[in-house]
Formats: sequence, C-alpha cells, structure tokens
Amino acid sequence: MLKEIESQLNSFKKINKNRGRLLISCLDQPGIISKISKFLFSHGANIIESNQYSINPHGGDFFIRIDFEAPDLIDKKETLMEDFQPIAETFSMTWELHLVSELKRMAIFASKDLNCLRELLWQWQNGDLMAEIPLVVSNHETARPLVEQLGIPFYYLPASKENRTEVEKKQLQLMSEYDIDVIVLARYMQILTPHFVASHPMKIINIHHSFLPAFVGARPYERAYQRGVKLIGATSHYVTNDLDEGPIIEQDTVRVDHRFDVDELKKMGGNIERNVLARAVKWHLQDRIIVHGNKTIVF
Amino acid sequence: MLKEIESQLNSFKKINKNRGRLLISCLDQPGIISKISKFLFSHGANIIESNQYSINPHGGDFFIRIDFEAPDLIDKKETLMEDFQPIAETFSMTWELHLVSELKRMAIFASKDLNCLRELLWQWQNGDLMAEIPLVVSNHETARPLVEQLGIPFYYLPASKENRTEVEKKQLQLMSEYDIDVIVLARYMQILTPHFVASHPMKIINIHHSFLPAFVGARPYERAYQRGVKLIGATSHYVTNDLDEGPIIEQDTVRVDHRFDVDELKKMGGNIERNVLARAVKWHLQDRIIVHGNKTIVF
Amino acid sequence: MLKEIESQLNSFKKINKNRGRLLISCLDQPGIISKISKFLFSHGANIIESNQYSINPHGGDFFIRIDFEAPDLIDKKETLMEDFQPIAETFSMTWELHLVSELKRMAIFASKDLNCLRELLWQWQNGDLMAEIPLVVSNHETARPLVEQLGIPFYYLPASKENRTEVEKKQLQLMSEYDIDVIVLARYMQILTPHFVASHPMKIINIHHSFLPAFVGARPYERAYQRGVKLIGATSHYVTNDLDEGPIIEQDTVRVDHRFDVDELKKMGGNIERNVLARAVKWHLQDRIIVHGNKTIVF
Amino acid sequence: MLKEIESQLNSFKKINKNRGRLLISCLDQPGIISKISKFLFSHGANIIESNQYSINPHGGDFFIRIDFEAPDLIDKKETLMEDFQPIAETFSMTWELHLVSELKRMAIFASKDLNCLRELLWQWQNGDLMAEIPLVVSNHETARPLVEQLGIPFYYLPASKENRTEVEKKQLQLMSEYDIDVIVLARYMQILTPHFVASHPMKIINIHHSFLPAFVGARPYERAYQRGVKLIGATSHYVTNDLDEGPIIEQDTVRVDHRFDVDELKKMGGNIERNVLARAVKWHLQDRIIVHGNKTIVF
Repeated sequence: MLKEIESQLNSFKKINKNRGRLLISCLDQPGIISKISKFLFSHGANIIESNQYSINPHGGDFFIRIDFEAPDLIDKKETLMEDFQPIAETFSMTWELHLVSELKRMAIFASKDLNCLRELLWQWQNGDLMAEIPLVVSNHETARPLVEQLGIPFYYLPASKENRTEVEKKQLQLMSEYDIDVIVLARYMQILTPHFVASHPMKIINIHHSFLPAFVGARPYERAYQRGVKLIGATSHYVTNDLDEGPIIEQDTVRVDHRFDVDELKKMGGNIERNVLARAVKWHLQDRIIVHGNKTIVF
Repeated sequence: MLKEIESQLNSFKKINKNRGRLLISCLDQPGIISKISKFLFSHGANIIESNQYSINPHGGDFFIRIDFEAPDLIDKKETLMEDFQPIAETFSMTWELHLVSELKRMAIFASKDLNCLRELLWQWQNGDLMAEIPLVVSNHETARPLVEQLGIPFYYLPASKENRTEVEKKQLQLMSEYDIDVIVLARYMQILTPHFVASHPMKIINIHHSFLPAFVGARPYERAYQRGVKLIGATSHYVTNDLDEGPIIEQDTVRVDHRFDVDELKKMGGNIERNVLARAVKWHLQDRIIVHGNKTIVF
Repeated sequence: MLKEIESQLNSFKKINKNRGRLLISCLDQPGIISKISKFLFSHGANIIESNQYSINPHGGDFFIRIDFEAPDLIDKKETLMEDFQPIAETFSMTWELHLVSELKRMAIFASKDLNCLRELLWQWQNGDLMAEIPLVVSNHETARPLVEQLGIPFYYLPASKENRTEVEKKQLQLMSEYDIDVIVLARYMQILTPHFVASHPMKIINIHHSFLPAFVGARPYERAYQRGVKLIGATSHYVTNDLDEGPIIEQDTVRVDHRFDVDELKKMGGNIERNVLARAVKWHLQDRIIVHGNKTIVF
Repeated sequence: MLKEIESQLNSFKKINKNRGRLLISCLDQPGIISKISKFLFSHGANIIESNQYSINPHGGDFFIRIDFEAPDLIDKKETLMEDFQPIAETFSMTWELHLVSELKRMAIFASKDLNCLRELLWQWQNGDLMAEIPLVVSNHETARPLVEQLGIPFYYLPASKENRTEVEKKQLQLMSEYDIDVIVLARYMQILTPHFVASHPMKIINIHHSFLPAFVGARPYERAYQRGVKLIGATSHYVTNDLDEGPIIEQDTVRVDHRFDVDELKKMGGNIERNVLARAVKWHLQDRIIVHGNKTIVF
C-alpha cells in the first residue's frame, strides 16, 4: 500500500479508537432499548447516533444501529461482548459489535471494465472508503498497472465456466490467507458457485448494470435499448445463489433519450454503476446495513 | 365546460391561430431538410423551433418536428397539405400537419383512484394541458362530482371482464360521437380488447404504476415491496395489444426506504404516476412524440 | 368539513389512539438515552421508531425523536408529562410530547395563485396530511369555491402594506378563536410583521419560489431567467423576522433549459413549490422537525 | 501522451473524418433554414442531427446547430467556408464551422484538490472526452504524478495574488505555444485577470462549488453549512470578468441532511462538481453550446 494511504488509514484508526457500532435485530419486545442503553451507559459509552426501526411494534421485527464512543474501547471490547451476551440471549438477538478502528479487509474482484474498480480505488485513496484493500483479483491483466501503482497486490486468475471450481479454490485460499471480510464484485462478470457464496454469506457485494428487477441477467443495456426505456439504472446487492436476486442495498437511475445508442447507454450507465456501487460499499464499511430476509435496512 | 376554462382555451386558440407543427418520419436521404424548409419558406412560414434526428445517416431512419408560424394558417391548411403531398411521396414520408389552434379532443378513462384524473383536470384548468375534454368515462361513480363541477359530461359505464365487449361498444360509440382524438387511461385498471386498441392506434396513453419493464402486470407496489427495491417508479406508454409493452413515452422514479410499507409505497408512487402521466399527455398534445417501432422519439 | 374527510380523520385518530412522539433536544451528556428509554419502559411504552443524533458527542447538542405506543395513552398523557418533568430538568431539555390522535389545527393562508393551496387540500382529502383545517384565510376571493366545497370556512381579508396591522389583528383573532397550532403560507405573498411572527414562533411554514439562498426576495423566476440558471427550485422554511432567512425545512430543484421563458419557469417551478411545501407540512405534522438555531433536524 | 490514448483519438478522428458541425446565431428572418439546408445539400452534406430554436420568431434571436456528414470534408473545408460566407453576410450571422476530426486542444488548470482533474483525465482516457490535452498547469506539484503517468506535460507555476501578472504571462505563452483552444479550470482556485480572460473569450470553463447564484465567491460549503440548506450543488460556467457571473453551462444538486458537517458537504459536493464540470466540458467539445448574452443555449 502507498505510504500516504497507509498513514491516512492509521490516522483514521487513531481518531476513532474509541468508536464502536452495535447492530441488532430481534423480535420486538418491550424494554429492549432500555436494556441496551442501560448496558452502554454502565460501560461508559456515549451514544453519538442511533437509529431504530420496528416493522410491527406488536411482536414484529426490531432493528437498531447504535454508533457510540467509549473510553479504552479497544481494550474493553472482549468484556463488552461477554457482558452483552446475556442481554442478547434474553431477547434472542442477532447482533454484531464493530470497532471503527478495526478496518474491514476488502477484496475487489474485477474484469476488463475498470470503471467501478477505478471509482472504488479513487474514493479509497481520497479517504472516502475506510478499509484495508489487501488484494485485487481479476480474470484479466487490464487492471494490473492501476492496482499495483497503489501498492496493492494484484492476482491474475483467468476464470471461465470451464475452470470455475479450480479458480474459486484459489480465490478462496487467497480470501482466507488475506483474512478478507468483504468481497466487492466490481463488474467481475463471472457467476460464483453456491460453494463460494456460502463461504461469505451477505459479505459479497455486486453491482448489476440495470434497475433490478428490470433486465435481470445478461446484456441489460442492449435490452434497455430494445425496450426504449427513458431511464437507465444500476443496482448494488448482496450476492446469493439466485442470480441478481439478492438483497438490494442501493439503486439509482438516470435519464436517457432516443438519441442514445447502446454504447452511449453503457457510458451513461457506467457513471451510475460506479456511484451506486461506491455508496453500497461505503454503507457496508460503515456498518449501516442490516439484512432482513431478502431485504436490507440501511440506517 | 366552465366558462373561465372555455375562455382560456379560446384565447389560446386565438394567440396560436397561425402556429402549426409538422411531424415527419422516413428513410434518411440527402436533401430532405432542404426540401422541407424550402417548401415552408415558399408558403410564408417561419420556423420557430425545429428538431431533427437520424438514427443512422446512411439510409437509416429520419425524424423531424418543425414548429412554425404562417400567416392565415387556418385558411391555408388545405393548400399546405395538398402542396406538401408530392414532397411526402418523393421521400415516402409518414407525416402529420397539426394546427395548434385545432385543439385535440381528449377523453379520460378513470376508475376509483382519482389521483391521476385530478392532476390532469387540475393542469387542464390551470392552462397547462391545452385540449378539449369532451367527456370522462369511468367504471365507478367516484369521480362524478370532480368531473361535473368542471362542466365535463361524466359517463358511468361499469366494466368488468364479463361485460367487456358490450361496454367497449358503448365506449367506442361515445368516442365516435364526441369525435375523440386521444384517450388517456388515468389508472383505468381495465384491459382493453385488441378491437378497441385497433380503433385508436398510438392514441391511447396509459400510466403503469411501476418502472417498466420491472413489475409488468398486476400489483406492482406489492411486488416492489417484496423485492425490497430502493426506488419506485411509473411509466407512461401508448397502449398496444401486449400488456404494458407499448412504446414508452415517459418514466420517472423516486427514492424509498425500508420504512415504507405497501400503502406508503402507493402514496409515494401516486405522486410519480400523476406527474409522469401529465408530462406524457402534455407532450402528446404538443405533438412532440413520434412513434418508431416500439419506441418513441420525444422532441 | 366534508363528512368523508371527517370520518377519515376520526378513523386515523382511533387507530393511533395509543401512539405518541417525544421530541427532545439538550446538551449531550452520558446516560440520556438510557434515562429516556427506562422512563418509557416503566410507563409501558413500546418504541416503534427512534432516531437520535448528536452534533458533537463531547458536550455538543443532542437531538432525539421517539415514536412509541403505550396503552391508554390519552388518559395517561398528564401523568407521563409530570413524570418526565424531573428527567427533563436534570438534563435541561427542551422537549415536546405529542399524541398522534391530537391532530394539529392548521390554518392555510393563500392568495390568488392556488397551486400550493390545491396540493395541500388534495393531499389532505387523500389522507396524506393528517390535520384539522379549521379555516383558510386569503386576501383574494379566488380560492373561496375550492375551500368551501370541502366544508372549510373561508375568510376573505384583503391585505396590503397599508392595512397590515389591522388585518393581522383580525387574523390573530381568528388564529386564537380557532385555536390554531400551525400556519401554512401557501404562496400568501404578504410580509408578516414581527408581532405576528412572534405569536407563532417556528409554527409558520412558508414556501419560497426559489432555491434559497439564491434569489431571496421578490420575483425569483424573473431573476432566474435573467441569470440563465439550468435548474430552478423551491424552499420551504419556518418564518422568522428576516425575510426568507428562517430555518430551511425542505428544498428541491428541477431541470430547465434555454427554451423556458419566465411563464414556463413559473409553471415548472409551481410543481416543485407544491411538492416541497407539502413535504415540509407533512413532516411538521408528523413531529419530525426539531429547530436548532437557524437550522432544522428532520428525522 | 500514452500510446493507447493516442490510438484511440486517431481512430476517432478517422471514423469522423467526414463529420462537421455548423453553429449559427443571428436575428430571426424568414428563409434562414431553407438557405442553410440548400447550401449543405448542394455541397453533398447529409444532416444527421439538427436543433434550432428562436427566442421570438418575429425578429428575435435565432440559433441553430447542425451536425452533418459530407464526403471529403477535410479537403472541402476551405471551400465550404468560403461558399458559406455570402449567406452568413446576408443574414448577419455569427457562425462557426467545426470538423469533428479537428480535435480541440484543451489545457487544464488545477490546484491541490485533484477531484475534478481526475474525473476529466479518466473520462478522457475512457474515450468520453474527445480532445487533445497538450498540458496541465498547476500552482502545486500535487497533480504531477497523475498527469505525467498519462504522458501529458505538467507545468508547475506557483501562482498567488502577488505574482499574478508574471505567472499569467507565462501561462499565456504556454497557451500560445501549445495552440490551446479551450482552458478548463478544474478547481484552479486563482482569479484570472481581465487580460487573461480577454485572451480566450468564452473559451475558459470554470467549476464553482455551489448552485449559483447562491454562495457566489469564497467558501461556499462553509456558508451552505451555516445556512442549513437541504441540497448542495455545483455550477459550470464560462469565465468572464465578473466573478462567478459568467454564462452558466450546467448545474446540478444533491440532497444532504443535518448529519453532514462541512467536510462531508465537501465530499458530497465534490462528486457533483466533477460530474457537472465533465458534462460542461463534453458539451463544449461537442460544439453543443452557443453563448447568447450572459446565457447559454445547449443543444
């Protein structure tokens, strides 16, 4: 990694050494917030921002994200988690505690179209995406100079339908070796097997180049052109085993008109794709997303 | 019709008595624009705004819309059309000449949800949609007071799958009796038969409550909710025999989030629906739309 | 009021009879949320949605909005308020408790341009704005039929620079007589005196027909046309004694181009105005807004 | 310049060797379009896209942009210009003929904030901005690696209020030496003297980091934060001697809320800035813009 990026990340970790985030979902019951906030208070934590939402207050689903500060958080983390366990059990919570200073380790998978990869690397370099990027994997050599000039290891693993299993094995080894938390498919264009998906559930973020569920599958711009739509869009979602059917994180659209041919739709769409993907990744890195069934709550 | 609306329309017709619009499509060939503009000049017409577009200049499709003024246009119309005929034949043109002062006669078909009907009537009353509205047809009584207070005849024709043929017969009689140019389905919620559609080709404008081609067919908001989309939309299109597959005129989307239930999606979407439909109707009334295959050119 | 609207409001009040909202702002200190949530829990309240935000966790400002349900809330209100008082004092809170079933009483001030008034009345009729509307005041007769057909008393009070004091006296009498909670200036076009403004601090909502702070003051569309802007906008804000300088609640813009003359800018802008104002009013009615200095927090 | 970019530009020039654009403005008079189209036809030109607009058809201003193809255009250019001269004189036209294959020579002026510069270089590399970029000038060394890795000469000319005249002299020398057609100020942050501006009238494109005319001048984000706006924007305009008052080419806005501090407004705004500037530059390079008084017509 380039020195200047490294020092930027280090300074971010230092500033945020006492900052944590608690993400909880469970069935709604009286007294949950009271219990959580008492717990945080008793451990010296001060809540900075909290957002809570219940689908149905009478026994429906309850979701909360709490952004807090607590002195000596890094040392205290284990204690906090142990002490919270009984509360979590009482309410049968699904929960996560994240320290902002423990940057997520993000792998990016790319292909020949560098549009999305470039945006991610740029925003990262610019201090907008706070993560470690230990490696970029691609089935083409195209991205190598862009990646290596930032000091990021680049792995060229030519992938196709034929060698999928073998390639995925190597990829999973790399993910494990580099201790990866989140995988971003920046127009990777290869379908992942259920085995790969199962290894990182709700940790693989994809960008699809259409406003889903319109134009699921291949060649969405060509089909958008044929249909004569007046807006084109992009959708970022977590990858599941159903193609383009995973929980949607973010979407956006942009106006086009009859003068746009397929190539111009692609150029226009590329701009939406990179922005939508970057927002989705940012929200994931900031622990803003709770997956609920096949939907996301983005706080 | 209310006196104040009538006098508003009359004043518009007077102001625009010399204003016309020429819409042409044909195969592209050298010299078309030269011929057309020479023709207009020789008839004393001054071009106010013109927009031309060719899909492929080497023998592809050519489209033009010309907005012009010519003295004594109303008297001259027949001559203009006769004189233009030979040019049209030379280039095998599909063409229309519209006089702005000859207001289109627009029928609105509504049902119980008055959202879109209200917007159209309001914009009409406000001078934003320049048309005659000789009647509103509905399969419910709900809209009667709203319609009749503007002095517009209201026809209650309860329609269902069972009596479709019979009802359409009456509707077509009304369309003919009132000499209707364009039919707007303002959330009419009934499927039209091919017979009805064929009677007004590319003159029936529908609003579909989703961003097509996502959620074709029934209950789009329910399905949008299930899918967890982050934007909802609406699409206005000309009606063809393929449900929700006609040429798209206009679309728009609006941001929603996890807090929206189906009812709130509907309320949010209703706002988009009425604006999208009103824009599509306005463009049709202003002769801005050329249909080309299953697409529209909107100048 | 029309029977159907009345019954719609009554049904809303019934459904929401146990629903309340707590809005709090104070200096940030440890333990606030813990105290509030314990208080609500001990009074049998279940939190449905809560949003909290601190400008600076180290002694900065703290804001929270809690949407909750509690059995027998209407009977319990007084007790709740008394019991909360000591907590409020401990933390020097500014706070409000609202019962959703206690609909706000909203007066609308209009003039000749009915665009915004119509949108408000329509959304109200449609069940999107939950409030009583005991009266509409106008300095022109134009709106009378529109208002009276909904069964709302209409007061024609011709206002001008000359008789401002006298007219405002009558208006204040009406506000007091009808026990008004919030006043919406739906393109009222008259400047209010400091005396009037002081009588309803942060309870008067205005719509300004530009994207503030661009084009403060008179004739914004004319000035937008002169400047050749590519977007026009509208701003809804609370009224203070500084013209167009009060806390902004909501803003939006829409694209225009060189073909728009001043009248068309006005038509285009009118659509933005009414939507921006309706959103601002809705958020106010839903107790989503906390005013902080000259800004708003909109939860 | 990198070989791959060079070959991309060369291939673009080859494909478009017969493509030209005619931009005309004059007082509206009958027969203009007829004359122009006859002229083009008689020189073998086929019109691909044409857009015409008159502010007022009765002697107001007339503007047209014609995109055409003509065989052997490069060889024919001189003849075309000579032959068009008499027509131009008859109607007192201001006019320009551009060959798409004669790429404009664009200089970029940057400073420390590389956001806009990066977007321009990226879109250029990606084939979205068709121009030669013979040099980048900056008053800081920050951009050097980014610029030089694309094979573009980088000139470091530290500029300040004190040495403005001297620095501008060098800059003008460079502009002349490199035969520059258009100068883009990509957050250059230095005020240009009237002498410099006069040397390239309506050929210097600036990006201002606010929605003009809101927040003219310095520190717009700080002032937007103070004012509590709900949208922030950016404006691209031609530079004149009145600071931030030149003809606006493009503007856009994006939604923000109370949680954004000044730094986050800047990050959010940066994304709008770079997109707005890139669109404005693209339209300039495509000869889509006619300046009329202090406004632009963008076809």
